[in-house]
Amino acid sequence: MRTAVLGAGSWGTAFAKILADAGNDVVLWARRPEIAAAIRDTGRNPEYLEDTPLGERVTATASATEAIKGAELVVLAVPSQTLRVNLGDWAADLTDDSTLVSLMKGIELGTTQRMSQVIVEAARVAPERVAVVSGPNLAGEIALEQPAATVVACSDIDRATRVQRAITTPYFRPYTNDDVVGCELGGAVKNVIALAFGIAHAMGLGDNTKAMLITRGLAETARLGVALGADPLTFSGLAGLGDLVGTCMSPLSRNRTFGEHLGRGKTLEQAQAATRYTAEGVKSCLAIRDLARAHGVEMPITEQVERVCHEGVDPRIAVAALMSRSTKAE
Amino acid sequence: MRTAVLGAGSWGTAFAKILADAGNDVVLWARRPEIAAAIRDTGRNPEYLEDTPLGERVTATASATEAIKGAELVVLAVPSQTLRVNLGDWAADLTDDSTLVSLMKGIELGTTQRMSQVIVEAARVAPERVAVVSGPNLAGEIALEQPAATVVACSDIDRATRVQRAITTPYFRPYTNDDVVGCELGGAVKNVIALAFGIAHAMGLGDNTKAMLITRGLAETARLGVALGADPLTFSGLAGLGDLVGTCMSPLSRNRTFGEHLGRGKTLEQAQAATRYTAEGVKSCLAIRDLARAHGVEMPITEQVERVCHEGVDPRIAVAALMSRSTKAE
Repeated sequence: MRTAVLGAGSWGTAFAKILADAGNDVVLWARRPEIAAAIRDTGRNPEYLEDTPLGERVTATASATEAIKGAELVVLAVPSQTLRVNLGDWAADLTDDSTLVSLMKGIELGTTQRMSQVIVEAARVAPERVAVVSGPNLAGEIALEQPAATVVACSDIDRATRVQRAITTPYFRPYTNDDVVGCELGGAVKNVIALAFGIAHAMGLGDNTKAMLITRGLAETARLGVALGADPLTFSGLAGLGDLVGTCMSPLSRNRTFGEHLGRGKTLEQAQAATRYTAEGVKSCLAIRDLARAHGVEMPITEQVERVCHEGVDPRIAVAALMSRSTKAE
Repeated sequence: MRTAVLGAGSWGTAFAKILADAGNDVVLWARRPEIAAAIRDTGRNPEYLEDTPLGERVTATASATEAIKGAELVVLAVPSQTLRVNLGDWAADLTDDSTLVSLMKGIELGTTQRMSQVIVEAARVAPERVAVVSGPNLAGEIALEQPAATVVACSDIDRATRVQRAITTPYFRPYTNDDVVGCELGGAVKNVIALAFGIAHAMGLGDNTKAMLITRGLAETARLGVALGADPLTFSGLAGLGDLVGTCMSPLSRNRTFGEHLGRGKTLEQAQAATRYTAEGVKSCLAIRDLARAHGVEMPITEQVERVCHEGVDPRIAVAALMSRSTKAE
C-alpha cells in the first residue's frame, strides 16, 4: 500500500517504521527540508529516534503534496493545535476514499473538539474515513521493536480492519474497535491523570494511592465518555487503561514528569522553567473540565489537577479534598 | 460496633487498625498465643507491621471463640487453603445475622471455588451475609495511613453499605459494589498476571509491553468473569484494574518478584529456592486455566504463565506465542 505519514516527530517517525515493516511504501513528511533530506540520505531521522534505521521502504519529503498524492492511507501526526490549519492546506491533495489516520491525542482549545472531529471539518471528509490509532505506544520502545499493542478505531469496521492489516508486524499488534469517541477521549484525559500521578509520586505516596488514582481517573474518564456517546468498555481497553498505565509507569512521560515538579511544591511557572515545556495535560485539563461541566459529569481528579495547575492550590490540600468526598458506590 | 479479625498476618493486622480507627472495637485472633499476648501487651504485632501502633480499641486473643462471640462483623484473613477447615471449627460461634467479610484472594484447589463460596459452604450461612473487601491495598502502606481506596462487595447492598461505614477512615475510602464474583475473580487472577508482569520486567521489556500485559490480562480476567456471571465493568474498578495495577507496580509484590526470577531464566524450583516461597499465582494459574477451559474462555496470558511455571517453557517462547496470535477486535 502507498502510505503517507505527515509529521516526523517521534511517534510519526516510529509509525513510518511500522508501516514499512508491515510491507507498505511510506512517504514521511517533515516540515523542515533539511530533516527530510537527512532522512532520504541516511534512512534515519536525525532529530528523533536517530539510532533507528527506518528501512528502504521509507522516503521523506518536505512537500506535503508530494507525500499525500496517491496515498491510500494518510497518517496525521502533527501538533494537535496546528492540525486544523495544516489540514486546510492539504485537503485538496487527498485521494478519493483514502483513509485518514489520527495519531494525535488532544482536545482543540476553544472548540473542545476531538482530533477526529477537527479532521472531518478541516479536510471535509466523511467521519467513516477517519481512523484513530491509540494505545500504550511509547515511540522509543517501538523503535526498539519491543512488543506493543494498540487500537485502531473507526466507525467503519471494514476500514479499521484494513488499517489493522496495514500496521501489523511481529512487534506491533493492533486490535480493531468501532468506538472512536472512547479511544480519543482515553488518550486526551490520560494526560491529566498522569499529571496527578506525577504529583502523587513526588509527594511520596505509595502504590495503593497511585493505583487508586489510575482506577478512579479511568472511572471519571469513562463517565465523561459515556456522556459523549462512548462505550464504557473501551476505557478498560488498550486506548483507555493501557495508554494510561503505560504513561503513568514510564518515568520518561512528559505529563508525569511535569506533575512531579508540581508535587515537589513548584508553581506552574517554576515547573515550566524546569522542564522547558508545558505538559499537554496542563492545557487540556481546562477543556476537559469545561466539557465535563457542560455535560453534568463529575470529574474530581481533573478538577483538582486544574486547581493545582491554574489556581495555585497546594497538592496536599488537593489530595485531602479527594479523600474526604462522601463515600459511594463504585 | 464489636468486630473480630481472624488472622494476624499483615493484611489482617492492618485491617484491625482500619476498623479501630473507624471507631469499632476489634478482637484480633492470632493462631499463636505468644503473638496474641504480645499484641495485647504492646499494642503492636511483633511479626507484621511491627512499627504500627494498632490503637487502644484493638485487643488480641488466641481463642477464635473469644474473638467471634458477640461480633457483628467477622473478618476472615486466614490462608486461602486452610479457610474451609478453620471455618468448620468456628461456624458454631457465629452470632446470628453477623456479616462475614473476606479479605482472602485465592481459588480453592480441587474445588475451584472462590473464597465466598467456601465461606457459604463451610459456615453454612446465606450468601447475602458474606462481603468481600478487595482493592489496591498493600498492607504496609495502609499501616502508614497513605491514602487508599477499596471495594466492599456484597449481594445485599444494604449490608455492603454498613460494612463501608464501618471501615471508612480519612486514609481508607471504600466503595460499594454488588458484584461479589467479579471482585473475587479480579483478586485471584491478578496474581497470575503479576507473574507475567514480573517475567516481562526481568526480560527487559518496556512499558508498552507491560501496559499491554496489564490491559489484555484484565480483558481475559473479564472474559472469565462474564462467563461466571460477573459484571464486566467490575474489572475496570478498584478490585480489578486497581488491584492489578497496584500489585504490578509494587516491587515488593510476591507474585511480581517470583515472576522476575522466572524471567531471568530460573526454573520453578530455582525461583522457589531464591524466594523461599511459592507465589499464589503459581498455584492458582492451574485452577484458573481449568476454570477457563471448562467455560470455553480463551485466557492466552494465563495459559502461557502456566506453561512457563509448570511445563518449563522458555519465557521468550511464551512472549513470541502471545504476539503471534491472529489479530482481532478488542
